[in-house]
Amino acid sequence: MTAAIIDGRAFAARIRERVAGHVARLKDEHAITPGLAVILVGEDPASEVYVGHKREATVAAGMESFEHRLSADTSEEALFALIDRLNADPKVHGILCQFPVPEHLDERRTVARIDPAKDVDGLSVENAGLLATGGDALVPCTPLGCLMLLRDALGDLSGQEAVVVGRSNLFGKPMAQLLLREDCTVTVAHSRTKDLAAVCRRADILVAAVGRAGMVRGDWVKPGATVIDVGITREAHPGRPGKTRLVGDVAFEEAAEVAGAITPVPGGVGPMTIACLLANTLAACCRAHGLPVPEGLTA
Amino acid sequence: MTAAIIDGRAFAARIRERVAGHVARLKDEHAITPGLAVILVGEDPASEVYVGHKREATVAAGMESFEHRLSADTSEEALFALIDRLNADPKVHGILCQFPVPEHLDERRTVARIDPAKDVDGLSVENAGLLATGGDALVPCTPLGCLMLLRDALGDLSGQEAVVVGRSNLFGKPMAQLLLREDCTVTVAHSRTKDLAAVCRRADILVAAVGRAGMVRGDWVKPGATVIDVGITREAHPGRPGKTRLVGDVAFEEAAEVAGAITPVPGGVGPMTIACLLANTLAACCRAHGLPVPEGLTA
Repeated sequence: MTAAIIDGRAFAARIRERVAGHVARLKDEHAITPGLAVILVGEDPASEVYVGHKREATVAAGMESFEHRLSADTSEEALFALIDRLNADPKVHGILCQFPVPEHLDERRTVARIDPAKDVDGLSVENAGLLATGGDALVPCTPLGCLMLLRDALGDLSGQEAVVVGRSNLFGKPMAQLLLREDCTVTVAHSRTKDLAAVCRRADILVAAVGRAGMVRGDWVKPGATVIDVGITREAHPGRPGKTRLVGDVAFEEAAEVAGAITPVPGGVGPMTIACLLANTLAACCRAHGLPVPEGLTA
Repeated sequence: MTAAIIDGRAFAARIRERVAGHVARLKDEHAITPGLAVILVGEDPASEVYVGHKREATVAAGMESFEHRLSADTSEEALFALIDRLNADPKVHGILCQFPVPEHLDERRTVARIDPAKDVDGLSVENAGLLATGGDALVPCTPLGCLMLLRDALGDLSGQEAVVVGRSNLFGKPMAQLLLREDCTVTVAHSRTKDLAAVCRRADILVAAVGRAGMVRGDWVKPGATVIDVGITREAHPGRPGKTRLVGDVAFEEAAEVAGAITPVPGGVGPMTIACLLANTLAACCRAHGLPVPEGLTA
């Protein structure tokens, strides 16, 4: 193996520490405590786990965590009434509704109800538009995390050939916008791309987010490239019957022979997501109070 | 010369006829007349010409044209009061403010004041966000016009390698989004791209919007590619002293030897812009009345 391993767990811990430092300063100097409100509708077990991790991280960073649990049969009216209340609450700087929500509720309408200035998941049309037009957007946490990893690994990204495989609203499209802002030459590839291997081989920066385990092979990687693997699939463990393991979209062992640097799965991009949720909440809080947003924690 | 010439003037005339047909039907069947309001602040001579062309085209399509001329020293308050009135006026389905506005006014704030559903220039953050997330956006007229020309020239664009040179909010970024929606593999290149010629040579569809006369040379074009030239620069005529001529971003004679099809300057992309303004106004009118938007006139 030749590639440097990008340790997302360690880097995310550093980001969380930096956020905590800024939170402590906001309390000391301005008597402000950033607050994140999380809405959970119903009792999806995976969502319970995610919400728990977010709560722990929020509290560990010195922020206030507000949890709102609604029953699975909550009406849109009741959900929106809660969102309206949180939008108006000056102690709440970030609001997220844990998805999926029960089927009778609509994710798009729910996101649209959240004040864009508090939309720390960066999912609203307003924030997508701000990102697309160079404004002060709240950016979705996973692409923001990838950007931070890339800046940390490479420094200046200007002029690099970047290829993003996948074009979701949640990841691929905002990731492409972020790389374009950094002056990369950016290609978005996807399932309809004709020679995907050849397109990937052009990349100085290759970001894979397709959700298909091991799809990006070693010979798709340009020697020396930086590879960011956003995929995460649970599959049967090949060596340990009855056990499972998490794998990414990139065939890690093969790619690591060729790449200059690569994120592992798990322990690469994953830990950055919550770190960026905290960074977004901090940024939203600073903006709400007319204070400068700390450097290096936003797009 | 081997390339087919894409006649934007003729195609724009066909689009305008189709719009006029739909307008006539709206009047007959629903007693609705689409209306476009144009705001002109100050007396910029070029703007006067543009506004005149828009008025003629609007009236020729059977729509109502509302012109609002404000003096150059109009306050933002007065401008916004007018926009608010037009936002509320059910006879007005599209609103555009002709830019540039005098320096004491702010273009971003002005656009943000226009109801996104009437923002027929497609310049608002809301419409950029809708385009980026796959919603029913009003798309800026020039990229929409290019998309229509490409669909007409090529039919299905799926799987084509598209390269957009230029990354403005007005053109390059929305053009890239539109091509991605059509399932192209899309690269955005720009002034920081390292080997721009090589990147352009990959393109089955090459769209140039850099504003530098003749920058894209013949040997930047892949044989058989479709070339869309969005640039328009007035320069001294080489053969006729004292005269000027309009040229594009592409060295036309050279590129036409290699390309499969190419838009000329003038007479290529230019005429599509007003045609798409009419198409956007029609679409906005249909949506305002809960009617289906005619096919082929939107993204």
